Amino acid sequence: MFILEKGIDVPIQEMSLQNGEHKTEEFRAKNPLGQVPLLELTDGTYVSESVSICRYLEECYPEKPLFGTTPAERAHIDMWQRRMELRVFIPAVEYGHHTHPFFAPRIKQFPDWGASNREVIEATYDWLEQELRSRPFIYGESFTIADITGFNGVQLAEVWGIGIQNRGNLAKWRDGINARESARVVRYAPRAS
Amino acid sequence: MFILEKGIDVPIQEMSLQNGEHKTEEFRAKNPLGQVPLLELTDGTYVSESVSICRYLEECYPEKPLFGTTPAERAHIDMWQRRMELRVFIPAVEYGHHTHPFFAPRIKQFPDWGASNREVIEATYDWLEQELRSRPFIYGESFTIADITGFNGVQLAEVWGIGIQNRGNLAKWRDGINARESARVVRYAPRAS
Repeated sequence: MFILEKGIDVPIQEMSLQNGEHKTEEFRAKNPLGQVPLLELTDGTYVSESVSICRYLEECYPEKPLFGTTPAERAHIDMWQRRMELRVFIPAVEYGHHTHPFFAPRIKQFPDWGASNREVIEATYDWLEQELRSRPFIYGESFTIADITGFNGVQLAEVWGIGIQNRGNLAKWRDGINARESARVVRYAPRAS
Repeated sequence: MFILEKGIDVPIQEMSLQNGEHKTEEFRAKNPLGQVPLLELTDGTYVSESVSICRYLEECYPEKPLFGTTPAERAHIDMWQRRMELRVFIPAVEYGHHTHPFFAPRIKQFPDWGASNREVIEATYDWLEQELRSRPFIYGESFTIADITGFNGVQLAEVWGIGIQNRGNLAKWRDGINARESARVVRYAPRAS
């Protein structure tokens, strides 16, 4: 989504996670954690962690800035990106991992704790509903990395049945982002049924 | 610790968390989350989130860089800072919050899940023990924000009784950082007894 928003051309190699291509020795030599995404830099080294990758690409391609253009703006946007990550995206990941049957054979689940992540998400939604009264995007007047992280979290929570319900400002924000061309890549499987 | 390493002068106002000074309406007007630390920028706005604050200060005071000096270096350091945060520091926070009696009246604890964070920390320690065979610091040859985050996580885990045990490389790294003047501010209470 970040790459599409930037309008940059980054060669992409898709991997089959179901076949465990990210757990091979060859891949672990590039990222010992065996996780995607992974970016090969021009110097031949590799960087993992989605936000670190986005930050690097922003430095290489400063046009259409998504991390801000002044130190103060970058500080605020970084703060909001972290809030979206720690209070929406990661709780949505944990909620799914620890409550959905799909993950039962894959990880040790703690269903009660997993379910408690819904409260974190709902509380954040209540807060965002207030924040979005006075501005169209998470940080302010323009679309940033904080919207990308937040939108991904909202979409993932929706997969697990945690909707934004009757929060009108949040819905307007979500629908606006969903209408962007870049949002087409934000799909999750499996769908909770 | 970051401010001491940078050798910069940032006016500090201490707050009594025990008296709930971070939960007052006045403070929430600055940070709706009611959390410290919080930095007032020169434009009169406020930024929370420790790492966002450090990143801002790094931009304002580029000497003695702790986030790297080239895009590639910054990408690697940002990745390692995130790894230290997500795999040592936050698990140490969660372990304490969910297993220690001190927090029992303060949050809803999920002790089994809390205890499982020890495995995350131990696995990360095993990995770091290997990584630190070939370099003195988390990212490479120089001290960075990744060392600060990692060291804070290691110290906090130690408070809860999760030690680095007989991992020699990790111990050498920890002791080296502990000997730095800046490490004196890394203290946690309550001590697990």
